[in-house]
Amino acid sequence: MFRPEIKVVDCTIRDGGLTNDSHFTAETVQAVYRAVCAAGVDYVELGYRNSKEMFSPAEFGPWRFCDEDDLRKVVDGVDPAGTKLAVMQDAHKAVAEDVLPCDESVVDMIRIATYVKDVDKAIHLANNATDKGYEATINVMAISQEGGPFLEEALRQMEEETSVSAVYVVDSFGALYSEEIHYFIEKYQAFLKGKEVGIHCHNSQQLAFANTIEGIIKGANYVDGTLYGLGRGAGNCPLELLLGFLKNPKFDIIPVLEVIEKEIIPLKKEIEWGYHIPFMLAGVLNQHPREAMEWMDAEEKEDYVSFYNRISEDPEQ
Amino acid sequence: MFRPEIKVVDCTIRDGGLTNDSHFTAETVQAVYRAVCAAGVDYVELGYRNSKEMFSPAEFGPWRFCDEDDLRKVVDGVDPAGTKLAVMQDAHKAVAEDVLPCDESVVDMIRIATYVKDVDKAIHLANNATDKGYEATINVMAISQEGGPFLEEALRQMEEETSVSAVYVVDSFGALYSEEIHYFIEKYQAFLKGKEVGIHCHNSQQLAFANTIEGIIKGANYVDGTLYGLGRGAGNCPLELLLGFLKNPKFDIIPVLEVIEKEIIPLKKEIEWGYHIPFMLAGVLNQHPREAMEWMDAEEKEDYVSFYNRISEDPEQ
Repeated sequence: MFRPEIKVVDCTIRDGGLTNDSHFTAETVQAVYRAVCAAGVDYVELGYRNSKEMFSPAEFGPWRFCDEDDLRKVVDGVDPAGTKLAVMQDAHKAVAEDVLPCDESVVDMIRIATYVKDVDKAIHLANNATDKGYEATINVMAISQEGGPFLEEALRQMEEETSVSAVYVVDSFGALYSEEIHYFIEKYQAFLKGKEVGIHCHNSQQLAFANTIEGIIKGANYVDGTLYGLGRGAGNCPLELLLGFLKNPKFDIIPVLEVIEKEIIPLKKEIEWGYHIPFMLAGVLNQHPREAMEWMDAEEKEDYVSFYNRISEDPEQ
Repeated sequence: MFRPEIKVVDCTIRDGGLTNDSHFTAETVQAVYRAVCAAGVDYVELGYRNSKEMFSPAEFGPWRFCDEDDLRKVVDGVDPAGTKLAVMQDAHKAVAEDVLPCDESVVDMIRIATYVKDVDKAIHLANNATDKGYEATINVMAISQEGGPFLEEALRQMEEETSVSAVYVVDSFGALYSEEIHYFIEKYQAFLKGKEVGIHCHNSQQLAFANTIEGIIKGANYVDGTLYGLGRGAGNCPLELLLGFLKNPKFDIIPVLEVIEKEIIPLKKEIEWGYHIPFMLAGVLNQHPREAMEWMDAEEKEDYVSFYNRISEDPEQ
């Protein structure tokens, strides 16, 4: 009933950090780390390793940078039980010099997030990571606005010029329907002969879990989720749903349920994520959730018609 | 891009009535009716036509019975603009005598909800409806707990013994994954040569919209949604997402957005629906949401582990 090749990546703290400028307390991060390890999930991503030149440490919390010292405070004394530690670098906002040799780091995997146009930067950072001894992936964001010749060129380059473990389909805008997921997975597979395909979905149209399943059915073996779907805008594929679907007996949902109760539900007092009409409209219209997030902060957040008129305005010809 | 044969049924008031014993105000029901008609949706279901012998009118609101007078108060003065009016009868809780001849009624379609075991009652009520001049469907509930020879016998009977327009796959527990939706749609199609297949999904695992899409891809032409997903437990397939997917230019999403803002969002103060861990666990475990709904009313509603232990307890051998 289950496919042992599937690797599940929890990215609650990393992706959730886009809702609060990565200002989670060390206690929350450690509780999430402990729970994800106890649940038998393959990877846990605790934040970005982005550049302090491009993000101010005065404004952003420690999980935007994932200094080795901060990570050690979280992982020390916790049995990882086979769960590997990941961080993410943005291709256009991170530098190779921030990455130590792997044998001096607590990190196991570095994931490079990129737009198609930045693929050369991504390849540089991915090769930096694998040369230094890490596992690596490249996560191609905003895929719903790609699909032409540059995506194919990027896929060809990632296949030929890197030794990453996987290349991801990232539906940043939650805009894709199942048939499009199938299309992108098949396109990736046509180019990536020695690498796995990954899938990372957003929930603008309540399709993050469903599209992750569709990716799995088509053969994606790296799959992302977050606890209770925590993430920017409508959020992500809920990890608990993914574990319920996957049926691999190595997973234990109990620690996941506990940490959702104790750490994630309380965050709902400060952070608003989940299904809301502005996020849904941005998804239907294949747009970044930025404007919807601003709208949700305003007094008139439930004036959906005005928001629809605003974001569906025709561009100048 | 769109399939004109697809009929969309809004069942906000009918299915939503399971959250509040059908106690919507006439103003809310009229606002929903007006919006659904203006949106160009094919059918609007305003409640049950169930028996006052089996439901006490002292306890349940008017939309559990849909007396003709109550319906007329709602629809009078509103241009239906092609939208037809539906009510539902439960096979085991309704009687044929409560249905007037169609030409004396404001109702156009009667949908019979049934379990497989009650299919003979359903066929009796469906034939009563079509004999009196109505369109009719039969909606087979709790399909995730069926699939054996009795389902096939029921499908054969509905094909041979009725003239309903459609027979529905109803995933009452929100338990099904896409591959199971495909399986049931194909099974129905194998038996129903002269009738359409319908699909009605619940959102326990955030799959109601996705599974409705999968039904459509496989050929289901009767599809149900509710405004903002209003419905028992985790709710239903959101109508606004369905209209965004379907692309039929006859649909207008603006009245839908307006009525969600003005009538549905305010209901969230009294009614809790949407994604919650107890509903999700009931879905994963293929159970009725009844116990989860009780748990959500209790003080300890966020003690998810206790709830999980309770509902996953092994039955006696």
